[in-house]
Amino acid sequence: MEKKRIRIIVAYDGTNYHGWQLQENGITIEAELNRCLTELLGEEIRVIGASRTDAGVHALGNIAVFDTVNRMPAGKISYALNQRLPEDIRIQKSEEVPSDWHPRHCASRKTYEYRIYRGIFPMPVKRLYSYFVYTPLDVGRMREAAAYLEGEHDFRSFCQTGAQVESTVRMLYSVWVEEQDSDLVIRVCGNGFLYNMVRILAGTLVEVGQGKREPESMAEILAALDRGAAGPTAPAHGLTLIKYEFFGKND
Amino acid sequence: MEKKRIRIIVAYDGTNYHGWQLQENGITIEAELNRCLTELLGEEIRVIGASRTDAGVHALGNIAVFDTVNRMPAGKISYALNQRLPEDIRIQKSEEVPSDWHPRHCASRKTYEYRIYRGIFPMPVKRLYSYFVYTPLDVGRMREAAAYLEGEHDFRSFCQTGAQVESTVRMLYSVWVEEQDSDLVIRVCGNGFLYNMVRILAGTLVEVGQGKREPESMAEILAALDRGAAGPTAPAHGLTLIKYEFFGKND
Repeated sequence: MEKKRIRIIVAYDGTNYHGWQLQENGITIEAELNRCLTELLGEEIRVIGASRTDAGVHALGNIAVFDTVNRMPAGKISYALNQRLPEDIRIQKSEEVPSDWHPRHCASRKTYEYRIYRGIFPMPVKRLYSYFVYTPLDVGRMREAAAYLEGEHDFRSFCQTGAQVESTVRMLYSVWVEEQDSDLVIRVCGNGFLYNMVRILAGTLVEVGQGKREPESMAEILAALDRGAAGPTAPAHGLTLIKYEFFGKND
Repeated sequence: MEKKRIRIIVAYDGTNYHGWQLQENGITIEAELNRCLTELLGEEIRVIGASRTDAGVHALGNIAVFDTVNRMPAGKISYALNQRLPEDIRIQKSEEVPSDWHPRHCASRKTYEYRIYRGIFPMPVKRLYSYFVYTPLDVGRMREAAAYLEGEHDFRSFCQTGAQVESTVRMLYSVWVEEQDSDLVIRVCGNGFLYNMVRILAGTLVEVGQGKREPESMAEILAALDRGAAGPTAPAHGLTLIKYEFFGKND
């Protein structure tokens, strides 16, 4: 029987999951996908994910692939799989890709949003998808600081220590700080992200907005190549993986 | 001891509640407020709410009042009460009002939003706060239909049957249909709303957007004075009470 490789776009509310990656204790997005795909296709399925998001992080468009010999048309898998998945995980698209296509071995551009809710008190309908900050934030200063992060840099200062990675150099195409009524959205687009990188960027930009750091200090933080130079890691629930875009011969 | 009347602005995520109003079975917003206020102030407190929202409906700014002899400064009650409330209920403001001020006996303007998420598949992070519609919606037609609803009308056709109310005449100051990326927001501002009125308006406007009804049919629906003439009641979780504004000598 011929195997084909299927790529799925996966959206989820991370609130009730211990992140993407399989683990012994605690339910994960990857485990739910494997379970439901195995039931649906009648063979043992193991997905390969593009981004192993942390516990509490959300996604509109994470990516995964898997191989199957089942002859269900690729485009129909999304509909059938959504019937089996819990309502906080929903496949947005399913399609066949070349058998050697791998989501982590191909050039891509990823977009994340970190959402902050500004108010005197927390707003219940916002609590699961944004970080509540009650201190005033100077958006102009945050934008100034954000500009230092754009371009190719060694982001070691913005990487959780203990992460094992060959290179800590990444390219950020854009770092925008946008006001949406009471929300402040930090939208970051890059060719890759280190462990906790967006959350550390967000935590540091918040400190700039609060006046605890100067916008120009971003250059020194980058140059320090030391996690201790940057600000705190902002909470996971404010972070959403928006989309993946792939380049290269396979796509 | 002198009694004073306190007004609170109450925000909540209605997902886990059986609506505002006290009931025998099931936890309600009103019951949580009474319980936490009674604990905080050391006397039996019974709040009076402005809008008794249904199960699943959310609020950014519902209003309630209560009387207390406790000498805690009115403005501090919000902070102290938020320490005791579950995280899906948060007081946004507390202040003293005249002792005869009553949220349902005074002229007011209320704003509701009904939010629709448009997509091929549901989006998990939107599922609790919007109604998922996968059929195409013609926004131009919905706006045309909405215009028929503005002004003073007898809205009996848009009132859940069985509701006991003296008059079914209400004034709608504005009915806007706004696109926000993938969301469609129906924003309604009026001097009062009948039982399920915004949800029936939303369900009917969706049918106009789907081409099942003509925009001009809104005039006939209003004239029919019959619930059967209007469309279905859209689901509760798409509805959010945005704000109350009060007029008159007391305010």
